[in-house]
Amino acid sequence: MNKIYLDNNATTKVDPRVMDKMAPFFVEKYGNPNSLHGFGTETHPAMAEALNSLYAGINASDDSDILVTSCGTESNNTVLKGIFIDYILKGEKKHLITSQIEHPAIRNTCEFLESIGAEVTYLPVNDDGIVTPEILKKHLRRGETALVSIMWANNETGLINPVKDLALAAHEYGALFHTDAVQALGKIKVDVQDTDVDFLTFSGHKFHGPKGVGGLYIKEGLKLTPFFHGGEQMGRKRAGTVNVPLMVGMGYALDLAVKALDYENKEIRRLRDKLEDAIMSIKDTIVIGKRELRTPNTILVSFKGIEGEAFLWDLNWNGIAASTGSACSSEDLEADATFQAMHVDADLSHTGVRFSLSRFTTEEEIDRAIEVIKKTVERLRSISSTYR
Amino acid sequence: MNKIYLDNNATTKVDPRVMDKMAPFFVEKYGNPNSLHGFGTETHPAMAEALNSLYAGINASDDSDILVTSCGTESNNTVLKGIFIDYILKGEKKHLITSQIEHPAIRNTCEFLESIGAEVTYLPVNDDGIVTPEILKKHLRRGETALVSIMWANNETGLINPVKDLALAAHEYGALFHTDAVQALGKIKVDVQDTDVDFLTFSGHKFHGPKGVGGLYIKEGLKLTPFFHGGEQMGRKRAGTVNVPLMVGMGYALDLAVKALDYENKEIRRLRDKLEDAIMSIKDTIVIGKRELRTPNTILVSFKGIEGEAFLWDLNWNGIAASTGSACSSEDLEADATFQAMHVDADLSHTGVRFSLSRFTTEEEIDRAIEVIKKTVERLRSISSTYR
Ligand SMILES: Cc1ncc(COP(=O)(O)O)c(C=O)c1O
Ligand SMILES: Cc1ncc(COP(=O)(O)O)c(C=O)c1O
Repeated sequence: MNKIYLDNNATTKVDPRVMDKMAPFFVEKYGNPNSLHGFGTETHPAMAEALNSLYAGINASDDSDILVTSCGTESNNTVLKGIFIDYILKGEKKHLITSQIEHPAIRNTCEFLESIGAEVTYLPVNDDGIVTPEILKKHLRRGETALVSIMWANNETGLINPVKDLALAAHEYGALFHTDAVQALGKIKVDVQDTDVDFLTFSGHKFHGPKGVGGLYIKEGLKLTPFFHGGEQMGRKRAGTVNVPLMVGMGYALDLAVKALDYENKEIRRLRDKLEDAIMSIKDTIVIGKRELRTPNTILVSFKGIEGEAFLWDLNWNGIAASTGSACSSEDLEADATFQAMHVDADLSHTGVRFSLSRFTTEEEIDRAIEVIKKTVERLRSISSTYR
Repeated sequence: MNKIYLDNNATTKVDPRVMDKMAPFFVEKYGNPNSLHGFGTETHPAMAEALNSLYAGINASDDSDILVTSCGTESNNTVLKGIFIDYILKGEKKHLITSQIEHPAIRNTCEFLESIGAEVTYLPVNDDGIVTPEILKKHLRRGETALVSIMWANNETGLINPVKDLALAAHEYGALFHTDAVQALGKIKVDVQDTDVDFLTFSGHKFHGPKGVGGLYIKEGLKLTPFFHGGEQMGRKRAGTVNVPLMVGMGYALDLAVKALDYENKEIRRLRDKLEDAIMSIKDTIVIGKRELRTPNTILVSFKGIEGEAFLWDLNWNGIAASTGSACSSEDLEADATFQAMHVDADLSHTGVRFSLSRFTTEEEIDRAIEVIKKTVERLRSISSTYR
């Protein structure tokens, strides 16, 4: 039995082409790019190519910065803590705004910053599960709000926030705007100039690049206290020996992902919709979030009367990998937070199951998944004490 | 002409065995270890094995923590900034001690912390270039000094500090002790229990592991505010999706490095000494630091009348890679700082050249290096305006 991976929002398979591209930089071209000798300089063309792909992949202008970081979590921490030091610790401003549906890399960082003196507002979402500019404007404080950080797409539901309008609202009130685009990049079009965001976070392992490498876009002209102090790498903006192989891998992965966006939007969407239609045909089943408001690869579903974990267990037994929510939280507090923010029935908050597809997902896999899901729902409901 | 790599303190070649060990975790076993399904759990045995190697490699007790980080720079920032938040920002203590010969990942971080309120003392070294407990004790302040951070071995000279005695002195004054062991691990024996250090930093790419992964040892019972806030990975002590392949790679690399310590101490030392003897036979040449006080693989040498960079350029032309100092500093401010701390003639501070060997260095390579170095010194001195 071939295993079926429907947990691509947690992490993705490295594209074999990406592996081939980065492989030589481990054992052969292992030089430190900051070294003056041939072992150092021979890494430069591939690094330049990777950086070009990153700039092109998010349409960044040449004068802006893209820091190569170790992950999305690092990028998020860099922005929030940098802004805290530059504005709040110095007493210039005091307020941050984020939302109730952010990933823990934002939420927990904000809670930490609250503990050392920041004021933080956690915005609610509307009935569709979206953070709107109207909601944001109610909480912006001119001269006080330093930064607004709202995710581009949600990791559990796939729901997409109107980043361009949110950035505009933030700017109207003199605040900077950051977006965690970890779940957007590679799934939908991400354009930093069109949306006019100031900072943008992404992570290689969510678009078939390697784990342990991410990026932070910083709009031209903006200053941000570094998060990693140390050597002079990356124009003194992010210290630490540059991770050549993973940087090369992420660059190429983004290149491939951007080229596959059409496919994502048509084929992956078609397979997702097929799976979703089949799931919706099971009675007492709710899919969270309107389809047209979501990334093309994600479904968060609640099967009434069935615990999410029990369901996953059965699926896993049948070789199918899905998730109850964010893989960052073993206890799935995440699902609760998002469900709560969306005012979903408390009853449903333990029943969430997330399916997330990728360009490696096949029609055969979806067909088999549909079969297994139907049988599993039937079986588990037949023994459920809460389902009648 | 085969190129010769004598810059192993900047970065090392990934051991091909390490590459083989980590390769499957990119494209095949790509699951997120925090996921509940088979793709997640199939990564666990290799991760457990890697963690065991890390614990064994530094002789950490089971109840202590080893955080897998993205590099030595991250580990250093984690300790210094965590201590700043836990002690200094809270007003409990106010003072940090480090030395004048630290890597920028310590020095620049300390300077940053000074800018936001810490008091920092930068200890001088003795005539041998060593930080001694006597020097340290003069600057420790009971009830005020929160942390002492002194590197185990210096990246440029290879000089080894008496970490055990330094930790003891720090503890006598109620301060915690951190050591940046990036240049020690894999070159000499590192035992966290014997030396009784509280925190210890290491970095995979310095011992034939991959770039972009490091470690931070935290003694059992000690608390430290996380540097990466976010998901619940690593017992909530370091957030971010765990980088399975690189962690597996670093664990195995350390295992291999520890097994090769005897070889390092005999064979690499023999080759280094051979090179050093040949270099010393060139007149007007100074090697910095007593041989017996250094790691077995490092030589920092000054050829009177020859600019370090010009020398490197000639070497590189002949296929030999060496360094003028830390690869983290394109302008070689580092060499200056260390030379200055050691009160080396200002004249000499632009002439430093570092050779650093590894277990992949062969006798043939050393023989050819000696030949090239001798010719190069002769040629450059013959056209030098300062050498007579
Ligand atoms: C929305 C979002 N932000 C941030 C992260 C963290 O990214 P990383 O695992 O690269 O630290 C994730 C995934 O884990 C995510 O889904
Ligand atoms: C002594 C020392 N500390 C810290 C570092 C930084 O390590 P990394 O490159 O893994 O961030 C280095 C090497 O660059 C080093 O030599």
